[in-house]
Amino acid sequence: MIRHVVTFALKEDTSADDLREVEEALGKLPGLIPELVSYEFGRDLGLNAGNGGFAVTALVEKPEYVGSYLDHPEHLRIRHEILGPHVAGKTAVQFAVPDRD
Amino acid sequence: MIRHVVTFALKEDTSADDLREVEEALGKLPGLIPELVSYEFGRDLGLNAGNGGFAVTALVEKPEYVGSYLDHPEHLRIRHEILGPHVAGKTAVQFAVPDRD
Repeated sequence: MIRHVVTFALKEDTSADDLREVEEALGKLPGLIPELVSYEFGRDLGLNAGNGGFAVTALVEKPEYVGSYLDHPEHLRIRHEILGPHVAGKTAVQFAVPDRD
Repeated sequence: MIRHVVTFALKEDTSADDLREVEEALGKLPGLIPELVSYEFGRDLGLNAGNGGFAVTALVEKPEYVGSYLDHPEHLRIRHEILGPHVAGKTAVQFAVPDRD
């Protein structure tokens, strides 16, 4: 399986309402993208100084399904129109993980 | 539950052997840190340009267990002695996720 992970640094003026809008939009993606085996996202809890502000992680069965997710029109819309305006930086990684039992 | 995610940018001279050493060391942590409900890590697969080089994700039940992991002596040893020398940048985020069924 493939674990997709993205961490985001957020612009300072990002509000809780902005993040609620992001979370509501991302929350609809599993219903639109069947390739997503699991999908988690959220704002940083403030447990450690120097952290990023938001993260998304998805699990898919095959490498090509990462593209099914990333290139899905609704994901692209969220990325460019809802989350994108608040992003100061981001790092994405996709790595292989053992198949689930 | 709490999802902990870290993405790493790696220095250019990081070798496959370096990453194998990191992976072998990280692979021992679940056996040493019972608070880890799930633990995944790996090198980027090169599916997308501009990605980071490595990522770790852990799932724990409570916020305070993030510290049990991060401050564990073996985690600190790996962080400073094995992975740290290869890190050009990193972003960590911890966010809340629904309890598992």
